[in-house]
Amino acid sequence: MSQGISPLSFHENKIWVLDQRVLPNTVHYDALLTLKDGFDAIKLMKVRGAPLIGFTAIFAMSVWCENSKNQNYNEAISYLNSARPTAVNLSFELQIVKDLIEKNLAQKKSLKEISKIIYDHGMNMLQSSEERHLAMAKFGLQEMTDLYGSRKLNILTHCNTGRLACGSLGTALGVISHLGKMNRIKNVYVDETRPYLQGSRLTAFELYQENLPHQIVVEGAASYLMKNKLVDAIFVGADRIAANGDTANKIGTSNLSILAKYYNIPFYIVAPISTFDLATPDGSLIEIEFRPEKEIKSYGNSTIAPIKSSALNPSFDITEVKNITGIICEKGIIRPTKPANISETIL
Amino acid sequence: MSQGISPLSFHENKIWVLDQRVLPNTVHYDALLTLKDGFDAIKLMKVRGAPLIGFTAIFAMSVWCENSKNQNYNEAISYLNSARPTAVNLSFELQIVKDLIEKNLAQKKSLKEISKIIYDHGMNMLQSSEERHLAMAKFGLQEMTDLYGSRKLNILTHCNTGRLACGSLGTALGVISHLGKMNRIKNVYVDETRPYLQGSRLTAFELYQENLPHQIVVEGAASYLMKNKLVDAIFVGADRIAANGDTANKIGTSNLSILAKYYNIPFYIVAPISTFDLATPDGSLIEIEFRPEKEIKSYGNSTIAPIKSSALNPSFDITEVKNITGIICEKGIIRPTKPANISETIL
Repeated sequence: MSQGISPLSFHENKIWVLDQRVLPNTVHYDALLTLKDGFDAIKLMKVRGAPLIGFTAIFAMSVWCENSKNQNYNEAISYLNSARPTAVNLSFELQIVKDLIEKNLAQKKSLKEISKIIYDHGMNMLQSSEERHLAMAKFGLQEMTDLYGSRKLNILTHCNTGRLACGSLGTALGVISHLGKMNRIKNVYVDETRPYLQGSRLTAFELYQENLPHQIVVEGAASYLMKNKLVDAIFVGADRIAANGDTANKIGTSNLSILAKYYNIPFYIVAPISTFDLATPDGSLIEIEFRPEKEIKSYGNSTIAPIKSSALNPSFDITEVKNITGIICEKGIIRPTKPANISETIL
Repeated sequence: MSQGISPLSFHENKIWVLDQRVLPNTVHYDALLTLKDGFDAIKLMKVRGAPLIGFTAIFAMSVWCENSKNQNYNEAISYLNSARPTAVNLSFELQIVKDLIEKNLAQKKSLKEISKIIYDHGMNMLQSSEERHLAMAKFGLQEMTDLYGSRKLNILTHCNTGRLACGSLGTALGVISHLGKMNRIKNVYVDETRPYLQGSRLTAFELYQENLPHQIVVEGAASYLMKNKLVDAIFVGADRIAANGDTANKIGTSNLSILAKYYNIPFYIVAPISTFDLATPDGSLIEIEFRPEKEIKSYGNSTIAPIKSSALNPSFDITEVKNITGIICEKGIIRPTKPANISETIL
């Protein structure tokens, strides 16, 4: 957490959560004081991005343990788990927290003591996440060098997968950041990422802070860019990767993978091992979250669409494994993305 | 112009232009009093949609003739022609107006008399456009019946191609409207069409007025919809069709054509013969208009993106003819879309 604006902040003996909904115009943190603060931060998308959702849940459970008068931790965990269904990190991190609570309760530790243990666990996870992301970034850099030598590159990305999404370097945007540090970025095309505009509001904000050349584009421009040879590679993150490599990510990701295949442009998922869900055989079994119509029908206080028109707002889609060039995780690039290669790499 | 809100209105001895930028919240018409009013209406996108741009230019030239002190009609025509480069209708209609002016000047008619001739020509064109669009709509209906029998259909469309875009029934949305009248619409998925939101603001507005079931979706949702078998066919309009069938249309159209091919879903261009530009051999030679960054970086008075971030805003893309199932024009469906079939049908 050494640079840029952090999505989580720790001072005055409190945990603070950046309200990403009002970026880039306003930088505002709310204190995380109760379990409901954590639930709301996730549900209302003050925090977003699979890894950050996981961290927020860990710290919300630390806060719950600090203040709870009872030991109904299962209820607290279920409540947080219900905030958003698609990203695997939420349930993954909460399972670890649950194991920690049970182990320490068995050792007769108090909930106040366990609160501190969970807090330390969260801080350790943030630190190790930084290291894992740097490892992924280096694999991404190596891949680009293998393909393109040392020339500067045009990269396309979707949604936000940087420090704001992860609390640490970032997944897909971590690779891009690292390419930038190595002076290998010509331009980053940033999908604005409707309806929530994570690209315009967050990714552009992070690239601007890092002084990397970038241009925001509408999702509809992807084919134009690829056809006109303005894209050397596409890097995106993941919310959940099934055992066969099918990948759930922000709505619009699957479009890019199909266009990339059509235009013969390499398309990479960048995601730590915690994103894999081997219990889910393929993408058809991943639950897709539908979010409120108003995210599409209005912006701020402005209504964009007729009040009586309805909107359909799936928040994620499934990218088929056959359209993924490689999955970059902290242990290397899984390629071809076949079940055997996946389980061999991550287990 | 028998139903819904008309983009052009004729009363009090004046021509009125609907400001489509403030729809659906506000219905406001400006009088077309000068050539510059016409230029601004086109350039600033008060009017948009290839056919309507053409009609607006015709009526702007009628107004110019009414008021002009000189006979520099070439200058006036060039000025209007420069307002937007991609749609062929603008130059097509202005060429006809130019021929009309020259023919009538040769017959010693005054500019005031020619103004009335151009006005009548515009009104005739609006009427014949209604008939041409109905012919296209019937070919579209027949095609759907050939493919799907009499069942109700899920249709996806992009941008706005209805009465607001055309002054008459509409091209792609004319087909959808006609399917609706025949009780063949289950649902219309309306791409919101970033950055200008022609889908959310205009197409949804027209479908709501016609009481047809519809849902607005972000462009990123197209692959999700097609993968989940929620789309039976895609209908879109065209701004210019090259001799080989390559088609310029609103940015994002080409994405849909590639996704449709991937998922084996029929993809149709609906456009009158005036949209064909046989002087342009293929799509690579069609000029693509780039519009201001602010269309992407802000909404109304709200800034969406970091002020210092830049945006790239191509307004159109080229759909490759090999990804088009058929082009529906007033003479039938051109299929397969090969140069010989095109010239045979339209000449």
